[in-house]
Amino acid sequence: MTILSAQGVDPELVRLRDSIDNFDAALIHLLAERFRCTQRVGELKARKGMPASDPDREARQVTRLRKLAVDAKLDPDFAEKFLAFVVKEVIRHHQTIAMNADLNNDTERKD
Amino acid sequence: MTILSAQGVDPELVRLRDSIDNFDAALIHLLAERFRCTQRVGELKARKGMPASDPDREARQVTRLRKLAVDAKLDPDFAEKFLAFVVKEVIRHHQTIAMNADLNNDTERKD
Repeated sequence: MTILSAQGVDPELVRLRDSIDNFDAALIHLLAERFRCTQRVGELKARKGMPASDPDREARQVTRLRKLAVDAKLDPDFAEKFLAFVVKEVIRHHQTIAMNADLNNDTERKD
Repeated sequence: MTILSAQGVDPELVRLRDSIDNFDAALIHLLAERFRCTQRVGELKARKGMPASDPDREARQVTRLRKLAVDAKLDPDFAEKFLAFVVKEVIRHHQTIAMNADLNNDTERKD
């Protein structure tokens, strides 16, 4: 027989979900901090006219994260997909920053 | 003038990338731990014949993560996309676990 909590949910499931919720909160805060860094990278690249995307850097990141994933017993293909998912968002941010920088320059030239 | 490192990379960019690499290592390890939990959830669900997906739970997670994202100054739409990305992978794992459990049951019945 399965013992259920007051809400009718298996207590082992409740415990696991509580842990998952804690990991998710940590992940969200780490992602927020990562985007603060990439925001600064984007501003730096826009200021110096560097391209938003950097394929060499991304290739190094993929290799490193796949290795870290294997060590942590995480599917390295998932780790690679995760990085691609985050980098896609970062590049979108960088392009927005670069576009805004261009608009500001145009405005400055017109003034 | 921009001062460049020995490898010709802007030192501010190097510092920011070092931080990003540290955040990525932390993210990979947290994701690994999260998947260890969801793996156990999958096994539990398969054992008890519960469905792999749980839309009510997912809706509560979305609401919570969007709020956490706003507090952490992260785009809540990105947080929601991130959760969907992870949950998609988790459901794929759960279905594999359930399928393997079915195969084992079939084998047991045949023996």
